[in-house]
Amino acid sequence: MEQELALGIDIGGTNTAFGIVDKKGKIIAQGAMKTTGYDTVEDFIAALVKNIRPLTHKAGKENIAGAGVGAPNGNFYTGEIAFAPNLPWKGVIPLAALLGKALELKVTLTNDANAAAIGEMIYGAAQGMKDFILLTLGTGVGSGFVANGQLIYGSDGFAGELGHVIAVRNGRKCGCGRYGCLETYASATGIVRTAIEWLETRTDDTVFRKDKDQLTAQTIHEAAQGGDGLANELFEYTGNILGEVLADAVAITSPEAIIFFGGLANAGALLIDPTKKSMEANLLKIFQNKVSLLSSSLPAAGAAILGASALVWQE
Amino acid sequence: MEQELALGIDIGGTNTAFGIVDKKGKIIAQGAMKTTGYDTVEDFIAALVKNIRPLTHKAGKENIAGAGVGAPNGNFYTGEIAFAPNLPWKGVIPLAALLGKALELKVTLTNDANAAAIGEMIYGAAQGMKDFILLTLGTGVGSGFVANGQLIYGSDGFAGELGHVIAVRNGRKCGCGRYGCLETYASATGIVRTAIEWLETRTDDTVFRKDKDQLTAQTIHEAAQGGDGLANELFEYTGNILGEVLADAVAITSPEAIIFFGGLANAGALLIDPTKKSMEANLLKIFQNKVSLLSSSLPAAGAAILGASALVWQE
Repeated sequence: MEQELALGIDIGGTNTAFGIVDKKGKIIAQGAMKTTGYDTVEDFIAALVKNIRPLTHKAGKENIAGAGVGAPNGNFYTGEIAFAPNLPWKGVIPLAALLGKALELKVTLTNDANAAAIGEMIYGAAQGMKDFILLTLGTGVGSGFVANGQLIYGSDGFAGELGHVIAVRNGRKCGCGRYGCLETYASATGIVRTAIEWLETRTDDTVFRKDKDQLTAQTIHEAAQGGDGLANELFEYTGNILGEVLADAVAITSPEAIIFFGGLANAGALLIDPTKKSMEANLLKIFQNKVSLLSSSLPAAGAAILGASALVWQE
Repeated sequence: MEQELALGIDIGGTNTAFGIVDKKGKIIAQGAMKTTGYDTVEDFIAALVKNIRPLTHKAGKENIAGAGVGAPNGNFYTGEIAFAPNLPWKGVIPLAALLGKALELKVTLTNDANAAAIGEMIYGAAQGMKDFILLTLGTGVGSGFVANGQLIYGSDGFAGELGHVIAVRNGRKCGCGRYGCLETYASATGIVRTAIEWLETRTDDTVFRKDKDQLTAQTIHEAAQGGDGLANELFEYTGNILGEVLADAVAITSPEAIIFFGGLANAGALLIDPTKKSMEANLLKIFQNKVSLLSSSLPAAGAAILGASALVWQE
């Protein structure tokens, strides 16, 4: 009998979510645990497998075709997580091999943005598309580029680092050691950096000046929805920079759509509208009015699990 | 019997070259004619077919699998040449259909940079590579991106416009109507623009100051080879900007190599060395010391014919 189920695992810096997904994209069972608090990656995997076992047992292990894992810096080719700054384990971790042995399943690994791109292609906003870009706008900026219906992994498995394209030459210092990377402006942390810079140099009245130290992208989002002028200006500024970088990316891969995913993407039109305006103003004429900017259509609760599980059907 | 020959046609702004190529990449017969001087595209095609007939007749038309055409703004999906600024015909020209009917052969069209990329993949420096970028550095800058062993045509067939990525925000005016495009700096005309700007504002002694009005990329290349300081500085400046843009492109598609093709690429190490230095200095750490910068290894005389003919075997 054909196996109809896949295990999807999303390993984040703080939490790890997992679930069993059928071929239609329905999550039939799921769970979550902390990523942190384990001495070694082996201890983490032992705990993860212990948490997953009841789910696979109930679904019937013989019905599960394999496991897909999305993780920061996950490499599709090698099955390794390499030097992930936001995960507790240092160096190169052979995650697919370790987990595959413990689960007795074939494990396919990629980074979280690539997993989300495959999830959107199979179950979400990119169904039927052969050329699109998936953008994850969270603590950082990640991306998955799909061309000819295939994810671009590149020669080493690390393609799709749009968050580290230089948006502003000699701009803000990035965690990667360079200056002006897109993610220092157009991520959840980037928009907060902009807000803090502006609060120090401007005197505008704004609802969040008093909460400067607890400022988050969510606070700014809510203030903008409430009509706060500075908050709205922050989204315009962020969208303007993001639109410039997207216009250059479009010139390279000419996607049908660019799909916004992750925390900052929850701002929806607040971010998409100024990004679209800036992108169109910066596009080469032949690409104008062709590229849709869309919000992810995966269910928020299980999007990462769905994306990771979809890797199994891409094999 | 399997057909072992392909017709390759390269339509340029000034000249059109054509040839019959065997599967090993040997050009067994070739010819050339002017692209200009015909009232309509139909007249041009009639003359082209008349010139090609003796070659196909001699090779045996039954041995020819099809024709591949490289042309500026050629679109693989539609078979049309759309609004090519450097060709005599305006608007949208259904070139593949017109030529296919006249030749009684299946005709596959793409732009000249994509044809060169396929040529390098099948016969040249990119043999065996699945992920690389081909860069044409001529009057303008063109590019062909290959990922997963396939050319990226994008949703509309116009992908790969690296020449119109913004290299310098609010920089030089480009023929496309925007400002700061890579091709205004890193093309044969771009390096001449830099030279003329510098001659106007600087007083350096240089061998080509007296020939300012006839200055070409070739003159600058020769001066640099002869040890001219300003000419060498021009290549460093050009390579520096090109390297910055290539570092961003690598972050997107993570190629194994970037191959330099066309007029300005003849400068070889004069251009490649400073480009490599700048690219490495601007690369995200995970991509450093991985990407080769190579010169085209197709024979100069027939490179464009080879590339165009290779389209037939890509079908």
